[in-house]
Amino acid sequence: MMEVASDPLGQVDILCITAHPDDLEISMAGTVLGQIALGHSVGAVELTAGELGTRGTPEIRAQEAEAARKVLQVRFRYQLGLRDGFVHSDEDSLMRVVTAVRRHRPRLVLTTAVRDRHPDHGHASSLVSDACFLSGLRRIRTAVDGRDQDAWRPTTVLHAIQDRWVEPDLVVDITAHWPTKEAALRCFRSQFHDPANTQPQSPISTPDFLPFLEGRAREMGRLIGATFGEGFTTERPPGVVDLLSLR
Amino acid sequence: MMEVASDPLGQVDILCITAHPDDLEISMAGTVLGQIALGHSVGAVELTAGELGTRGTPEIRAQEAEAARKVLQVRFRYQLGLRDGFVHSDEDSLMRVVTAVRRHRPRLVLTTAVRDRHPDHGHASSLVSDACFLSGLRRIRTAVDGRDQDAWRPTTVLHAIQDRWVEPDLVVDITAHWPTKEAALRCFRSQFHDPANTQPQSPISTPDFLPFLEGRAREMGRLIGATFGEGFTTERPPGVVDLLSLR
Amino acid sequence: MMEVASDPLGQVDILCITAHPDDLEISMAGTVLGQIALGHSVGAVELTAGELGTRGTPEIRAQEAEAARKVLQVRFRYQLGLRDGFVHSDEDSLMRVVTAVRRHRPRLVLTTAVRDRHPDHGHASSLVSDACFLSGLRRIRTAVDGRDQDAWRPTTVLHAIQDRWVEPDLVVDITAHWPTKEAALRCFRSQFHDPANTQPQSPISTPDFLPFLEGRAREMGRLIGATFGEGFTTERPPGVVDLLSLR
Amino acid sequence: MMEVASDPLGQVDILCITAHPDDLEISMAGTVLGQIALGHSVGAVELTAGELGTRGTPEIRAQEAEAARKVLQVRFRYQLGLRDGFVHSDEDSLMRVVTAVRRHRPRLVLTTAVRDRHPDHGHASSLVSDACFLSGLRRIRTAVDGRDQDAWRPTTVLHAIQDRWVEPDLVVDITAHWPTKEAALRCFRSQFHDPANTQPQSPISTPDFLPFLEGRAREMGRLIGATFGEGFTTERPPGVVDLLSLR
Amino acid sequence: MMEVASDPLGQVDILCITAHPDDLEISMAGTVLGQIALGHSVGAVELTAGELGTRGTPEIRAQEAEAARKVLQVRFRYQLGLRDGFVHSDEDSLMRVVTAVRRHRPRLVLTTAVRDRHPDHGHASSLVSDACFLSGLRRIRTAVDGRDQDAWRPTTVLHAIQDRWVEPDLVVDITAHWPTKEAALRCFRSQFHDPANTQPQSPISTPDFLPFLEGRAREMGRLIGATFGEGFTTERPPGVVDLLSLR
Amino acid sequence: MMEVASDPLGQVDILCITAHPDDLEISMAGTVLGQIALGHSVGAVELTAGELGTRGTPEIRAQEAEAARKVLQVRFRYQLGLRDGFVHSDEDSLMRVVTAVRRHRPRLVLTTAVRDRHPDHGHASSLVSDACFLSGLRRIRTAVDGRDQDAWRPTTVLHAIQDRWVEPDLVVDITAHWPTKEAALRCFRSQFHDPANTQPQSPISTPDFLPFLEGRAREMGRLIGATFGEGFTTERPPGVVDLLSLR
Repeated sequence: MMEVASDPLGQVDILCITAHPDDLEISMAGTVLGQIALGHSVGAVELTAGELGTRGTPEIRAQEAEAARKVLQVRFRYQLGLRDGFVHSDEDSLMRVVTAVRRHRPRLVLTTAVRDRHPDHGHASSLVSDACFLSGLRRIRTAVDGRDQDAWRPTTVLHAIQDRWVEPDLVVDITAHWPTKEAALRCFRSQFHDPANTQPQSPISTPDFLPFLEGRAREMGRLIGATFGEGFTTERPPGVVDLLSLR
Repeated sequence: MMEVASDPLGQVDILCITAHPDDLEISMAGTVLGQIALGHSVGAVELTAGELGTRGTPEIRAQEAEAARKVLQVRFRYQLGLRDGFVHSDEDSLMRVVTAVRRHRPRLVLTTAVRDRHPDHGHASSLVSDACFLSGLRRIRTAVDGRDQDAWRPTTVLHAIQDRWVEPDLVVDITAHWPTKEAALRCFRSQFHDPANTQPQSPISTPDFLPFLEGRAREMGRLIGATFGEGFTTERPPGVVDLLSLR
Repeated sequence: MMEVASDPLGQVDILCITAHPDDLEISMAGTVLGQIALGHSVGAVELTAGELGTRGTPEIRAQEAEAARKVLQVRFRYQLGLRDGFVHSDEDSLMRVVTAVRRHRPRLVLTTAVRDRHPDHGHASSLVSDACFLSGLRRIRTAVDGRDQDAWRPTTVLHAIQDRWVEPDLVVDITAHWPTKEAALRCFRSQFHDPANTQPQSPISTPDFLPFLEGRAREMGRLIGATFGEGFTTERPPGVVDLLSLR
Repeated sequence: MMEVASDPLGQVDILCITAHPDDLEISMAGTVLGQIALGHSVGAVELTAGELGTRGTPEIRAQEAEAARKVLQVRFRYQLGLRDGFVHSDEDSLMRVVTAVRRHRPRLVLTTAVRDRHPDHGHASSLVSDACFLSGLRRIRTAVDGRDQDAWRPTTVLHAIQDRWVEPDLVVDITAHWPTKEAALRCFRSQFHDPANTQPQSPISTPDFLPFLEGRAREMGRLIGATFGEGFTTERPPGVVDLLSLR
Repeated sequence: MMEVASDPLGQVDILCITAHPDDLEISMAGTVLGQIALGHSVGAVELTAGELGTRGTPEIRAQEAEAARKVLQVRFRYQLGLRDGFVHSDEDSLMRVVTAVRRHRPRLVLTTAVRDRHPDHGHASSLVSDACFLSGLRRIRTAVDGRDQDAWRPTTVLHAIQDRWVEPDLVVDITAHWPTKEAALRCFRSQFHDPANTQPQSPISTPDFLPFLEGRAREMGRLIGATFGEGFTTERPPGVVDLLSLR
Repeated sequence: MMEVASDPLGQVDILCITAHPDDLEISMAGTVLGQIALGHSVGAVELTAGELGTRGTPEIRAQEAEAARKVLQVRFRYQLGLRDGFVHSDEDSLMRVVTAVRRHRPRLVLTTAVRDRHPDHGHASSLVSDACFLSGLRRIRTAVDGRDQDAWRPTTVLHAIQDRWVEPDLVVDITAHWPTKEAALRCFRSQFHDPANTQPQSPISTPDFLPFLEGRAREMGRLIGATFGEGFTTERPPGVVDLLSLR
């Protein structure tokens, strides 16, 4: 069921669970880079292969995603085999996410926007939230390669903000990592604006999309006095230790 | 009390009432240009001279505002003499706004953000709202040059969005007018980034501010499928005649 | 599966997608009449036949709906065969709505309330929203009569307000069309108050229901200075071209 | 300063504190009648004489208010002498309300809407809230006729809903009292629609206003399964003893 | 399918429908006791057996629930056989709840929190709401022991507040019943803190949980001037008869 | 005007600006202790002397406040001379707060709740917010002891939560400091429950108040998995550097 681009069994500090290849790059790549720079390990899974994308093919998108993974130094990236366009919280979908969470035992999960232009994002947001809770119930039994998995519940689940504006609960300064985020985005040649591409236009392939993304990052940065930022919403108020560490 | 840059007695379709010189250009210049292009007349008053601005002087700002007025083809622009930094809804302030509204008899008032980084903006927003209501009460007596004014109530009051993000209730496509908005902003040389300026930095004089404003316009435009937009909040749901005219 | 009252293949400017026969008349008939008066074409589909309605039968309700269709001059009206009382976003339901949207290629979709007394309305609201998005993905394949359909995404989806009050984002003046809306409502003799009807009472068959609907229309009208209005909520801020066209 | 229509010194169970004569009748008369029918005593004070009203005069309005008082069987009704159109929370205004609250020692205060078309209503709402708190501080000294007043804090303050819709926190069934509410409204001949009246039109003197008020009452009633209702917002969740007493 | 602890066929005034054994005790036991003291009858059903609970077993939990039922003097308590951790609104689940509602014909239903730490609670909240509506549709056919059930719709559905804070719409004073609520909680020995228990810790088995619950009750009580309270949210504003009965 | 308990001229990292003596202890003492333990310096000013407090006298309250200051190891504590019960944003009040902010040049300001049972708290919250902005405008001139003050704007302003529940944006774990917070609270013998005290009861002198405060701290702690916490609201989303530092 799963196509594994790198060692998927390793524990990571942070697991990104998004709906489609390129969601991570659009909504949280700067944050991923910043947390890696602080010494934290990061892995990525996508619920679907993005097989309904207007442009490209699942194969091309997988190659693009792998190239972007290397740019971001994310440890692994693989897909959970849900159906693009029809993400919802049925038991099979929940158990696939539970299995991934228990495999990688992250303290922090970064996932999709609570609501967005693409309905998969809101549905994935609920699915991942519920699965992170269920993953902590030891009486839900899962196994990988014939070995039982232990229960695991991440301490924190944060929801990125992707296309539609959502008021963020916290913002991460990504100024230092903006050029690398841009490089990761450029890996998705099939998806974004390319004058040579003759496939039909999509809402993210117009010439306006990447400048909009830069505008979004400046909008988020402005809130914390930085040039570029990425915003997230929380599921409960975060516990802050050192108030003077806040920007 | 009032310094009149052009005939202030004329009736206009739209009256912009902002707190400081340059608020209009930052938050609603593209909309002003678009409405003028549709044939509507626009005038502008500012509550204060912006005398607390970190950079420039009231005199320099007045010259800049007049230059921007010409770029925007706004019919007139003058100030109401309230105190920068201390805008609030006392009777004298209310009556100055009532007098301006009755003088220009606008069907539409565009005013400041309902809440913002600068507290004057939120306070001005309440002041202008209340004054637009009071202006319609014939038993509130006002006179200009010894002549009694008639009561007048604008049909609609819209609140711009300036520094802090506020969820807009409607967005105006300003793509065609973006270059002219930029030209109007550049008139305020004392306020925005200028490597040659040795005055202290302010939150709008950093190199990040104008790119942030472009980002904001792209953010607003994205919501309606345009390259650039300006957003507004309403005080009551607007009445829409032709639903297919909505973008 | 579908019972077609008139040519269902035609393109229309506006497609009404509601849950039960009479939802259209209760919540959006005045708006439909007004848009037709402006020269726009309108069609209607219902998700279900209203087979759980306390009064009447699906057959009677279909006759009533057809009579009301003629009053409103809606081009066609047919049902999508979902199950009354159990509307939800499964794949079959989504694909039925996608097929209808692609068949009629509307620029505007008017659909049910985002939340309401009847749970079908809120569920239909989500279903139709998601389907309007999916309809624009060319890799979702649908066919009618053996012919592939092209992808199509409406520019705007508006949600009506039916029984429970929901704060409207925009209001349409229906004063001129109120008598015709009332005439369309009277077509549903089985549903509304009728002293001669001996079937059990429902929440819409009491003598209070039609006066309540008039009250609702006056409430909505009051917000825009009209006698009668219908309110809608938006999914994103609407783009407005001429601000002086707002009432 | 105060014109007393009946014994103003008496204690009442419920004190209505509104901004202008006729606010009580428009927004809470049915509730007043219902509570009196349950055996509770009710008094009324208005902050202003409504001297800015487009129609009528303070004298005429006072006569109308007194006639309505008799219809409603409210024990007393007098005015606190604040300035119509300029209601705000200065110390003098606060102390006038404190004095009235201490004089009548009500367990429940009914006051104006938290926000409304008329800005006085929102300002009065804040003023009365703050004054009800301050009234409970024994170190704020007030006296009437040379006698010190005791501190008094009402248990509950409820805010009526008048022109603009505000989502109610609770609704009172006024079906039995609707005809008497209408009779009380009709006392205000100078304010509401009267074809013989040649004074300028106001937003409440149009032929649409009283039918709108009926519509509002039906809208509120619908929420609780009654024909007519009046809604209120609370300042804190109410404590309910018998859950089966809720309608 | 159902394990019946007492006569389940009886009509009750109030039916508690929660997701897991102990939800009732945690979130609404004081209210249940208070309503019984007023003379109202109360029954309880749980959607699931709590079979995923970290501690205890379904058998132990059933014994604990029965012991607590006796403490609370609830007439009956049984389970509907849904799957713990996977509560959602499919047709089978809806029909099981409809059947229970029609069996007991309650005027008031008390159910789970609209959102909570445990995702089952939010899902159960929607499920029970929808089922209470569907239960009133006579064309939905259900039978018990071969006898058709009559349609029934509760007047009111209130949602308790359990782990995560939700702003209450009304609060019930449970001061007099706090000791008995504590006694009912202590029946669930397997679930809450017990130094002798060697099973894995859960979020409700820590030493902090019961003191937190007391804190929650004090927090709710404070809002209405009582020592202990339980809060609820409503689905529509409640109709209140005697405003002076509010605390 | 100011009574200085310790060197008031010193710069501090964190300045607490509350309305009345004991506000700091009730709403933020645990946080103050925790930040001091991390090495940050903290000072405190109160807007008023609490001269309207039902119990005690300004002199007694000043002694209690000084005793509590020592317990908390806050560097200084003095009052700004505003009038208890009548806190509002007039120019004199704003300038007193500006002067204090410029004197102590804090990076972080902790102030009162955005809304609360006591209206002074909400008014103080607005006043302090506005003053922190104005303090950064160099053209607002202030002087202390004849020396001009430099402009200063705190990076962050956080609003505590005191009596009425407000949904927190972030929570600080105060478990380690709870006993010392209790000790600081006990310094205010005149204000809280004391069976020997014969002065009139106030809402904070009942036997329920301190247990309620413990309940509040447990409620806040529960949100972040701690035993005790204090919550705060933000004015803009905070910038977080290390996401794994969040609790």
